[in-house]
Amino acid sequence: MQQPEVGHDQLDMLFNARGVAIIGASSVPGKPGNQIILFALEMDYQGAIYPVNPSATTISGLKCYKNIGEVPGLVDLVVVVLPAAACVDAAKEIVARKKEKGDVAGVVVVSAGFSEHGADGRQREQELREILVANGIRLVGPNCQGIMDTYSGVNTTFDVGRYPRGGLSFIAQSGAFSVSYLEWAHPLGLVGLNKYVSMGNMADVNAIELLRYLGKDERTRVIALYLEGIGNARELIEAATEVSKRKPIVAFKAGKTELGSQAAQTHTGSIAGSDAIYDGAFRQAGVIRAATVAEFYDTCRAFGKLPRPRGNRIYILTVVGGPGTICLDELSRAKQIRMAQIAETTKENLRATLAPTATVDRPRGYTDMTGAVNEELHQEVLKIVLSDPNVDGLIYLTTPPAFLDERKLAENLVAAYQSFPEEQRKPVLAVLGYGYAVAEGRKILEANGLPTLEYPDVAAKVMANLVTYSQYQARVSK
Amino acid sequence: MQQPEVGHDQLDMLFNARGVAIIGASSVPGKPGNQIILFALEMDYQGAIYPVNPSATTISGLKCYKNIGEVPGLVDLVVVVLPAAACVDAAKEIVARKKEKGDVAGVVVVSAGFSEHGADGRQREQELREILVANGIRLVGPNCQGIMDTYSGVNTTFDVGRYPRGGLSFIAQSGAFSVSYLEWAHPLGLVGLNKYVSMGNMADVNAIELLRYLGKDERTRVIALYLEGIGNARELIEAATEVSKRKPIVAFKAGKTELGSQAAQTHTGSIAGSDAIYDGAFRQAGVIRAATVAEFYDTCRAFGKLPRPRGNRIYILTVVGGPGTICLDELSRAKQIRMAQIAETTKENLRATLAPTATVDRPRGYTDMTGAVNEELHQEVLKIVLSDPNVDGLIYLTTPPAFLDERKLAENLVAAYQSFPEEQRKPVLAVLGYGYAVAEGRKILEANGLPTLEYPDVAAKVMANLVTYSQYQARVSK
Repeated sequence: MQQPEVGHDQLDMLFNARGVAIIGASSVPGKPGNQIILFALEMDYQGAIYPVNPSATTISGLKCYKNIGEVPGLVDLVVVVLPAAACVDAAKEIVARKKEKGDVAGVVVVSAGFSEHGADGRQREQELREILVANGIRLVGPNCQGIMDTYSGVNTTFDVGRYPRGGLSFIAQSGAFSVSYLEWAHPLGLVGLNKYVSMGNMADVNAIELLRYLGKDERTRVIALYLEGIGNARELIEAATEVSKRKPIVAFKAGKTELGSQAAQTHTGSIAGSDAIYDGAFRQAGVIRAATVAEFYDTCRAFGKLPRPRGNRIYILTVVGGPGTICLDELSRAKQIRMAQIAETTKENLRATLAPTATVDRPRGYTDMTGAVNEELHQEVLKIVLSDPNVDGLIYLTTPPAFLDERKLAENLVAAYQSFPEEQRKPVLAVLGYGYAVAEGRKILEANGLPTLEYPDVAAKVMANLVTYSQYQARVSK
Repeated sequence: MQQPEVGHDQLDMLFNARGVAIIGASSVPGKPGNQIILFALEMDYQGAIYPVNPSATTISGLKCYKNIGEVPGLVDLVVVVLPAAACVDAAKEIVARKKEKGDVAGVVVVSAGFSEHGADGRQREQELREILVANGIRLVGPNCQGIMDTYSGVNTTFDVGRYPRGGLSFIAQSGAFSVSYLEWAHPLGLVGLNKYVSMGNMADVNAIELLRYLGKDERTRVIALYLEGIGNARELIEAATEVSKRKPIVAFKAGKTELGSQAAQTHTGSIAGSDAIYDGAFRQAGVIRAATVAEFYDTCRAFGKLPRPRGNRIYILTVVGGPGTICLDELSRAKQIRMAQIAETTKENLRATLAPTATVDRPRGYTDMTGAVNEELHQEVLKIVLSDPNVDGLIYLTTPPAFLDERKLAENLVAAYQSFPEEQRKPVLAVLGYGYAVAEGRKILEANGLPTLEYPDVAAKVMANLVTYSQYQARVSK
């Protein structure tokens, strides 16, 4: 089932709104209605921002308007941050404005207190949607943080400010979950973001439509999806099947258990549905479903930054035996992975380059460089392994600080990776066990397209996910 | 089988060495033989540090000695950082010194190139051990970082410097793995450390003896064990069974698979053994085995900081629906956990305190406070739940920054936790989804005994591990 192009165009107008009004804008620091203004101002946004509040004259230096009808310029997008009971009236005012001025493509309703909150809430949500949709206005939410586009600079969220650009678009039923990921990633630049939608109760704009939209969005390399439940799961799977032919969808599905499903219902009013059915359907649709939050976090950003493996032959290059062993344990459990069988000349090169204490390619696909290596050797060895045509992807592990200069090491790893022309690059996951204690090295690697991970076992899962998707895509594109 | 007390006393002399000599000390920055000196000097160590190197007069301001025989003061511990081929001769010199001066209780051999490195290495290791042990000297390693004691200030490692004190002791077959954990934890104070041993090839001092030793060590609240393989696994399990009656042992066992086991052999010369057998034996012995590195990291530090749950009735208090749902999913899968059934008066108190948008105790054991709460309310609500005698432990989840001041929030959480007398405290896991982006808040919580976690699903596993151990201990102490 093809989504009508009007939907696509309208979503495009939301992400590229030429003017954004915030009904319920506040001058009180810490209030969502204030924070939204502050974050909107942080962006490189070329359009106009219009606070609307009957009792303020300016907010954060912006002229404030008494009501939405008064706002002079073009308003493609309206954000509503009012108590739930006031939202329907606000919707009516927005419709009145649209009738007069012809603008307003979409409304983000931030407020909670709708279908996640009993029968009254459900009715209120229905009313809200009917008023807006009947008048050609798309509704995002309610009970959400709305949308962000790091390229256009549109940002209606109250928890995420200016953010590094990149290939990941994230659509989420839980604002807190997705915002946690983005903020978790922020200090080290772990995620490069394109578009973000906190979908909330999905009264109108929902995961299905957004999947299709992002499937066509050229800047989106990977779609991250956090889902609790959706009424029309079959249609979601149809959309995912279409989209995953073109680009990866990485999903985390909560509400897996009876109790979890009940919690999801109080949260976004969603019915979770059978977890086993989702699991099978996702797999068939080519959706990569992460089992843990850590796997989800790291898989999404690996897809966002790295080239896809062209095969399933993976090599482990480690400076550290323990983490290397843990990674190999997990990688050798993944049925879709084969440990790469490198050429004899590659082995000879490694032996000639490394210290005699190194164990080269033992077991197959695994070289322990041991600690006695300097920054330059890392670069050489990485190049040797990546040059071997029998290798489709590499996991590199170390714990850098005391022996080596982490900045120099990171620069050398980047130089090795980037010594190959872009179209010949292979995915490299760098496991730097020290976490934030090697922040400077990690920032350099991340800024240059090399994802850095903290857990050797998660790295194996991420590599397996990259391979799974390549295999899926190869299969369906035949 | 009881370990002879002489072993205990000798290990005690290593951790409390009155003088430490480093054979192979180096003045070249970045070399292990230099880094060991630098880290040793960082500690509050009351004993003397003696660099030994025939071609230097001072190293890092310390007088350097030509050979170990020349060192004037008491030397309880000698560190050897020489090429593998030179270690046996060094051992002979150490023995000669002991014969003359009567000191030297133990030797740490840092050098690699022993049983992890073929037949020659195995023979060299045997020779090394025989020379030392026959002369009453204990051998730590070879192929290791040796020992650290944050209280005595002894530190032979080249990767860990001055470290916050606490209740966790870590014994590890992989220095890189354990050091990764310690460094990963360092910037936020996630781990409070007591003793640390990187055991390497365990030619003499091994995991069995160290388990027994730490079992009797009053400052050790929890023992973290990283293991790849051990020859006498049966004896290890016997020791673990004894020790886990008194205090928890949290284990990560690598070399789970055929390939992983081969890698472990090239790493520490160990044969991994059947993973399923380890799994069952650990469970019977009351050892908490973590399935993932993240679970291991967080379980160890939770045991190190928190009181033990007195029952299995756990409550989830969340500000954030998505992460809360994920946590509940995982917690409700743990068979040993029951969601706490709070008293009617507790529910009334929660309803009276929280905003009307909050969903109180729905589903049972789960309250979503929703985002509309201030820092003070967090304190009140935490107290209300922790006061209920039907609650044995609490997982608290939030994503603090935009609305709330993270420092104030952290201080209020600490105040709520510490408002109970120490003997009445219940374990609280604080999931602050933002990771390093809320570093300041996390530091406050960690410094006051409240572990902060990043992943809601891992938090559930950690709580389940705390409960499993309490249940085990209750069972065996009957």
